[in-house]
Amino acid sequence: MTYCLGIKTRDGLVMASDSRTNAGFDQVNVARKMHTFEAEGERVFVLLASGSLSCTQSIVTLLDREFREGRGLAAAETFYDAARAVGEQVRRVALLDREALERDDYRFNVHLILGGQIRGQPHELYLIYPQGNPLCASDDSPFLQIGECKYGRPILDRGIRFDRTTLEDASRYALISIDSTMRSNVTVGPPIDLLVYAAGELRVSRYRRFNGKDADLMAIHSQWEAALRKAVQEVPEIDFNPPPDDP
Amino acid sequence: MTYCLGIKTRDGLVMASDSRTNAGFDQVNVARKMHTFEAEGERVFVLLASGSLSCTQSIVTLLDREFREGRGLAAAETFYDAARAVGEQVRRVALLDREALERDDYRFNVHLILGGQIRGQPHELYLIYPQGNPLCASDDSPFLQIGECKYGRPILDRGIRFDRTTLEDASRYALISIDSTMRSNVTVGPPIDLLVYAAGELRVSRYRRFNGKDADLMAIHSQWEAALRKAVQEVPEIDFNPPPDDP
Repeated sequence: MTYCLGIKTRDGLVMASDSRTNAGFDQVNVARKMHTFEAEGERVFVLLASGSLSCTQSIVTLLDREFREGRGLAAAETFYDAARAVGEQVRRVALLDREALERDDYRFNVHLILGGQIRGQPHELYLIYPQGNPLCASDDSPFLQIGECKYGRPILDRGIRFDRTTLEDASRYALISIDSTMRSNVTVGPPIDLLVYAAGELRVSRYRRFNGKDADLMAIHSQWEAALRKAVQEVPEIDFNPPPDDP
Repeated sequence: MTYCLGIKTRDGLVMASDSRTNAGFDQVNVARKMHTFEAEGERVFVLLASGSLSCTQSIVTLLDREFREGRGLAAAETFYDAARAVGEQVRRVALLDREALERDDYRFNVHLILGGQIRGQPHELYLIYPQGNPLCASDDSPFLQIGECKYGRPILDRGIRFDRTTLEDASRYALISIDSTMRSNVTVGPPIDLLVYAAGELRVSRYRRFNGKDADLMAIHSQWEAALRKAVQEVPEIDFNPPPDDP
């Protein structure tokens, strides 16, 4: 399984992904699920991938080849076109592999998140479905998740606001959301890739990979658990004999 | 959908359930999913139900009839036998309805949680599967969930410890877990039923139903959100240029 998320606020984007991939019960492997396409000063794209690694690798390989040849993501006029360029490669790989997969009862289950910016245009965040169609994040729905997304969702629902959340806070929320998911589900695991993109930068300046034993990540994990327990204690004790409601 | 949970600590049990049930997109109804069977001073059982309301109602009706006739839950010699008595009625209703349901592509998807105590024996907590087989909570896995359980799980994983968590704290965790689920998923909704059972009581003394606009519930909700935001702020800022790891 996988857990990736993208957050879009007024100030920019936060992208994060786990790295666990498994090809069976007794095999836990590591694969990077965050991929960047960068033409400094011109355009930056960050792609997060969930689903069969074989399929997502194919899509990234094809997108990368296009990018180096000045096509696809390199040539898209708008960010919407960029999301469509990703969807086109999703459909191409589906055409190549889907029938053979389904014949053996595997699903073509690729989900992608694309964040970034093209010079002169606003920063954007999209989800691309296995069918290739794109969905855009909005002020009301400022984050997008793929993979094992339920465990890590409540903290985002409580905290992320497009017009108020700083990038520094958004990156804390992203790490906590992934940490919560890893805590509750063994199929999501480190290393964690975290990238913060400030609107207008047009290059990747803040990226970090956290290994499972990263001291900062472990500090965040234990500090968060302690803070949660303290917060629970501060909730008022439940009264089992409340006064009757006013009519 | 539904979300119910039972927590077992050294001191007793906390049982909680939502009340939303829907028979289609435009119909949201309310049904109690918590049922009690009580012979004061002798035995207490609390049953939480998820799955098709028609099937769970049948099971409760049959268990209730048995109980009034001194059979089933009323006659079980151990709590394990009580869990088996519930499983027997699950299998009975499956025999009655499963084939007809599956013919129309409905699943027989009943999950039940049974908590309580028989005099002279320890308090217990079981999950009963749609196939009728029981699973017991343990010191290492002191809570059981049914229905839409992923959203509300991280807070329980972080906080509930069999030998350390007080019943007062466990009931806070239960309410927060349900509140988190309602926040992120519209198919889980109020009223919330909450029951706290202290080991040895052998009667139901602490039960409360929280409506959606219950002032205490709303206070817990907003206080919890504020505490979470504050806790996030207290997590250290993420350093994107950490010193290299020691070799």
